[in-house]
Amino acid sequence: MDYYDHFRVLPDSKLDLDKFDPTCKDLHDDRAAAEEETLKLRDRIRELQYELYAERKRSVLICLQGRDAAGKDGTIRHVFRAMNPQGCAVFSFKVPSKEEAEHDFLWRHHKVTPGLGHIAVFNRSHYENVLIQRVHNMVPKDVWKKRFEQINDFERMLWNNGTHILKFYLHIDEEEQLERFKKRLDSPKKHWKISDADYSERPYWNEYTKAYEDALTKCSPEHAPWFTIPANRKWFRNYVVAKIMVAALESFDMSFPETSVNLPEIRNLYHEEKRKEDAS
Amino acid sequence: MDYYDHFRVLPDSKLDLDKFDPTCKDLHDDRAAAEEETLKLRDRIRELQYELYAERKRSVLICLQGRDAAGKDGTIRHVFRAMNPQGCAVFSFKVPSKEEAEHDFLWRHHKVTPGLGHIAVFNRSHYENVLIQRVHNMVPKDVWKKRFEQINDFERMLWNNGTHILKFYLHIDEEEQLERFKKRLDSPKKHWKISDADYSERPYWNEYTKAYEDALTKCSPEHAPWFTIPANRKWFRNYVVAKIMVAALESFDMSFPETSVNLPEIRNLYHEEKRKEDAS
Repeated sequence: MDYYDHFRVLPDSKLDLDKFDPTCKDLHDDRAAAEEETLKLRDRIRELQYELYAERKRSVLICLQGRDAAGKDGTIRHVFRAMNPQGCAVFSFKVPSKEEAEHDFLWRHHKVTPGLGHIAVFNRSHYENVLIQRVHNMVPKDVWKKRFEQINDFERMLWNNGTHILKFYLHIDEEEQLERFKKRLDSPKKHWKISDADYSERPYWNEYTKAYEDALTKCSPEHAPWFTIPANRKWFRNYVVAKIMVAALESFDMSFPETSVNLPEIRNLYHEEKRKEDAS
Repeated sequence: MDYYDHFRVLPDSKLDLDKFDPTCKDLHDDRAAAEEETLKLRDRIRELQYELYAERKRSVLICLQGRDAAGKDGTIRHVFRAMNPQGCAVFSFKVPSKEEAEHDFLWRHHKVTPGLGHIAVFNRSHYENVLIQRVHNMVPKDVWKKRFEQINDFERMLWNNGTHILKFYLHIDEEEQLERFKKRLDSPKKHWKISDADYSERPYWNEYTKAYEDALTKCSPEHAPWFTIPANRKWFRNYVVAKIMVAALESFDMSFPETSVNLPEIRNLYHEEKRKEDAS
C-alpha cells in the first residue's frame, strides 16, 4: 500500500479530523508483521541516511506535531532513532526564551534548519505559532492568519535551497489521550512526563482540531507535505511513519559521490608506503 | 574486567603510546561473545540515557579523538547510535570558520556543550588545538603550551556545573591505518571518505604521538578522564567504549524524578473525565 499518497494532505483540500479514523484497522491489523517490517524499514532508513550524509547534496527537515501524548517522543524513539546522530539532530521547541520571543516567530527555527547531508527533526515546530498561539489568543487573529503564508514562503525558500520537508501530524482521539494520561499516572517511571498542561488543554480539544485542520490544509504543498498519521495504535503509527520516510528518501535517487581526490595518485602513495614497509 | 580503570589515563602519569598495544589480544579474543555483549551494553546505555534525560540533573560530554581512520565515525555508528537523538547530539569539528578563528580556541566548543539531561559527542574536539595546531606549527609553542591549563580550567568549570566529561583516544598503529586506507581505495562506497590529508599526515606520525601523549597525560583529572582505547580491532574498540560508558553512567546512581505536579489532583481530574465519558 502506498502510504505516502494515502496519508498525504493534498494542497488546499478539505480535512475533517473528527472523521479521520485514528486507528485504521481496515488498513492493517497484523501487529507482529508490521513490527517486523518496521525493523527492516529502520535498517533501510539508516542506509539511506548514510547516502544522504555521504552525498552532501540536500538536507531533510522533519516536523512532528500532535497533541499531548500523541506519541511525538515515541516516534522519535522508535523510528528516527534508527538514524546515526552524527547526521541527525532533534530539536524540541518549548516556550520561547525572552530573546526568541523578541524576534519573528521563524527565527529560532531557522537557526537550526539542517545543513547539506543532515536531517533535523523538529519535535513541535514553527507550526505551534498557528496552533497554541491561536487557540489561546496569544496573538490577534490578523497576526496568526498571515502566518500561513509566511510559513509557506519560508518552507518554499528552504526547498529551493535543497531542504526536503516532511511533516507528520500524529492523530489520536480524546479517549486514547485519556488512556495514555492514565498510564502515566499508573507508572512511577512515567510521572516525570505528566504536566499540569495535560488536562488544562483538554477543554480546548475542538479549537485545536480546527487549528490543525487549517494548518494542515493551508500549508501542504507538494514539496513540503503534511501527513495525517493514525496514531492510536503505536505500532501502526511507527510503521506508517517509517514507510513514508523510506518512500521519501528513496525518491531522492541518491548515489555515493565520487571523491575529489586523485585516486591513482593516492594508490601510488599506498603502494610506495607498502613497499617501504615490506622492505624494512 | 574493569575496563574503566584499566584504560584510564592517570593524572600526570607517563604514557608511551608506541608501547601501548593497539590490539590487546591477551585481554579478549572472543569476537562473537564481545559483539553479543556489546548489543546488551547498548541497550543498557539507552536505558541509562533515558534516566539521564528524565532526571535533568547533569549532562555528559564525550570527546572522541584519534588519527585518520582510527574509527571515530565507526564508534559513533556502533556505540553512540544506541542513544536517542532527542537527548544526544554529535558535533564534528572541522577547520574553523573565519568567525570561529577570530575567537579564543574554546569558543566554538563552549557554544555546543550539553544542557542538563543531554549528551554531546564531540567528533574531534577542542584538543585539536594542542594536536594538529602543534604538529603543524599553526601557533607558536608558548601559545599551545598554555592551552593544557586553559583546557583543564574549562573542563573543571563544566564539571563544577554538572557536566561529566569522558574522553576517548582511539589508538591504532601505522600498519592498521595503512590497511584501512587501502580498504577505502578498494571500496567505491568508501571513496568519499578519502582525503588528500590521509597520506600527507602520515610523515608526522611521531609528532602526533608526542602531542597525544602530552594531551592525554596533562589533561586527565579524575573528573574528566582520558581513556586510551586499543582500536586496531573494531569490535573490541566498540566493546571497550560501551563498557566504559555503562560504568560511567551507572556511577551517577540516577533515579526517575518525582513529578512537580499534584498527582492526587490530576488523578481526580482523570476520574471526573472518565465518569462523564462513561455517562455519555
